[in-house]
Parts: sequence; C-alpha cells; structure tokens
Amino acid sequence: MISEAVIKRLPRYYRHIKQLADSGVERVSSTKIANVLNITASQVRQDLCNFGGFGQQGYGYDVVKLKNELAAILGLDKVYDMIIVGAGNIGRALAGYKGFSDDGFYVRALFDIDPRCTSINGIKVYDMDFLNTYLRQNRVDIAVVATQKNSAKGVADALIAGGVKSIWNFAPIELEVPDGITVENISMSESLYVLSYRTKNSKK
Amino acid sequence: MISEAVIKRLPRYYRHIKQLADSGVERVSSTKIANVLNITASQVRQDLCNFGGFGQQGYGYDVVKLKNELAAILGLDKVYDMIIVGAGNIGRALAGYKGFSDDGFYVRALFDIDPRCTSINGIKVYDMDFLNTYLRQNRVDIAVVATQKNSAKGVADALIAGGVKSIWNFAPIELEVPDGITVENISMSESLYVLSYRTKNSKK
Repeated sequence: MISEAVIKRLPRYYRHIKQLADSGVERVSSTKIANVLNITASQVRQDLCNFGGFGQQGYGYDVVKLKNELAAILGLDKVYDMIIVGAGNIGRALAGYKGFSDDGFYVRALFDIDPRCTSINGIKVYDMDFLNTYLRQNRVDIAVVATQKNSAKGVADALIAGGVKSIWNFAPIELEVPDGITVENISMSESLYVLSYRTKNSKK
Repeated sequence: MISEAVIKRLPRYYRHIKQLADSGVERVSSTKIANVLNITASQVRQDLCNFGGFGQQGYGYDVVKLKNELAAILGLDKVYDMIIVGAGNIGRALAGYKGFSDDGFYVRALFDIDPRCTSINGIKVYDMDFLNTYLRQNRVDIAVVATQKNSAKGVADALIAGGVKSIWNFAPIELEVPDGITVENISMSESLYVLSYRTKNSKK
C-alpha cells in the first residue's frame, strides 16, 4: 500500500524525469532530482524504491527507464476517453488545452445546459439532456466536472449513475461519492487561499 | 509554526464553514465538519485550536465567528491586486472568473507576448514589453503565471525583479525562486496523473 504523500509526489517525479528525457539527459542522481523537487535525496531514493526504480551507486538513475516505469505506474501507458461537463470558462479552457492528449487523455465531448456553440476546438458540445444517452453509447474513463458549484452534485450523481468511475472535479465543492468512485479535485480557490495565507505570513 | 498539512487543510475548512454561513447555519459540531471533509473529529478540533477557533462542549462552533476567524488567518480580510501573465486559454479563463473578487482578489491587468484583444472581461491586456513599467507604477500583490512552460521561468524572474512577492503558477514547471518569494502551484497535469493512478489502481 503506497501512502497518499508518495502518490502525490509521483506526478512531480514523472514531470521532472520526462523533462530530462525530452532534453536528452541520460542519467540523473537522486541528489539532482531532490534539488529540483525541493525534498531530500534520501526521500527520493526511498520513494523511487517503492516503484521499482532502482538507482545504481555512482551512476544514478537511467532517465528513460525511470520515465517509462513512472509512466506505467501512473497509468500513462494507456489512452483515456474523457468528457467535460460544463462549457463555461474552465470547461472551454480545458477543451482547448493541447497538453492532455500528449499524455493519452482525449476529450471526446462537452456537455452544457446551454450549449451556445456546436463545437469547441473540434470537440462536439451536446445538451445536458443527451448525457445519459451518451454514457450508454460511449466509453468514458474520466469525466470532468466544470460546472457551477450548485450543479456539481447533480452532475456527479448523473455521471456515476451512467457508469463513470473517475471524476476530475473543478467545481468549488466537496463531492461525496460512493466507494469505488475516484474523485480528484482541482481547487483553485483553495490554492489561492494557501497563497494568501503565505503572502500574509511571509517576511516583508 | 503551523505545519504544511494543517495549512493545506485550512482552505477546506474555510470553504465549508463559509458555505454553512451562507446557508444560514448558526452552529456546527466537529463531527459534522469531519464527515464532510473526510477527516476525524479529533483532527478537526486539534486543527481549529491552532487558529483560536474554540468549540464548546455540547454546542460546537459558532459558524459566523469561526468563518471570520478563518478568513482573517487566511488573509481574506484584505484586498489583493492581481495581474495575469499569459492570455491563453487558462489566462482568459482566470480573467473571466467572477469568484475571485468575492474573496477580495482583483485582476487588474493581463499581459501577453501577442495581445490580440485590448481587453478581456473589462480587464486591459498589455504587451509583455510593458510589464516592467507597469510593475514600477502599480501595486501588485499576486502575479499569476499562465504562460507556456518554456516562458514561465523568464516571466517569474521578471516579476520578482519588478518587486512581486507572491506568484500563483499555472505553468507546468517547478519555479525556483529566492527566499522571501512565495509560489503556489496549480498543477493540472499532476492532478490528472493522480487521477489516472487511482483509476488504474481502483477496484474494477
């Protein structure tokens, strides 16, 4: 059982190692990784041991091998079919973000209560009324909730009823979901509050 | 010294308590807070003690009082002047988000290397060349970095050189900053990776 803290660090390792691989770096030491991620080298070695990433004394880690191991652990060696519910500012920004498909996440459809455009960046926008039917007819690995706060709970319930197992929630609300359903929150306001806390409490 | 883990939980308390206050709830028990936030009641009591939020046996917490205490600790009892650098999908979505000003965060200007619009949602868009001058002439409490990965470091350096102390980073890169500068990252790809990890490892 891998701890929550380690799971949260995993993506940071992956992103850094991927950047090294893209730049043609062949090997890297735990100390160098530690410096960039602002953790200790022994933490790096311990974390990576959990995932079968073994460095060699005096050599470090093979960057490409480590990248592939991390990608496999993160499930980034597959393709994910995504839909986005809510075509407001956030939903549209996500639909327009090219980076997702680099990692195998494909936005297949958008849904909105008031679909003013028929498509955004080549992705079809459907009326919310069509969501149930769509879920019956299509595979959806991940659904993004990008609605207003008040609609988020109802949307999540509809998604789960339609068989969606993984929700990426951008609405500023804690979604309560049954066992077996995964929710990952992007909370911009929480992040902004942490920033204002730190801004207030930092040395002037 | 308040621990990182507690600081990260603070905004979740605040958001929940604010929601209760907005709904007219007058008091709440640690158990009820704990259920919604998916932590233990004793953790809630311990956390809130750190911030002078004292519940009473058999009564619980006074919601409005607790909300105001949390807001003050988070620095949400002030007004923050923000700018956004990068007027792509993310920058535009942030400029259009009405929720920030509810909490006292005001977006005063956008900057872009290729400002195609002169304003977005009533907020003026300036050429990047003007950033230095703007920073000399205006107070900026928080600067949002919403550029591409490759530009983020240069932008952060320019902001810091111009006197900005707090950066909210949406670019998918770890920014290294000097002591005394606060960076808070919103990493969408990291969150998505955690979700794919959990999706992969959840019971089917």
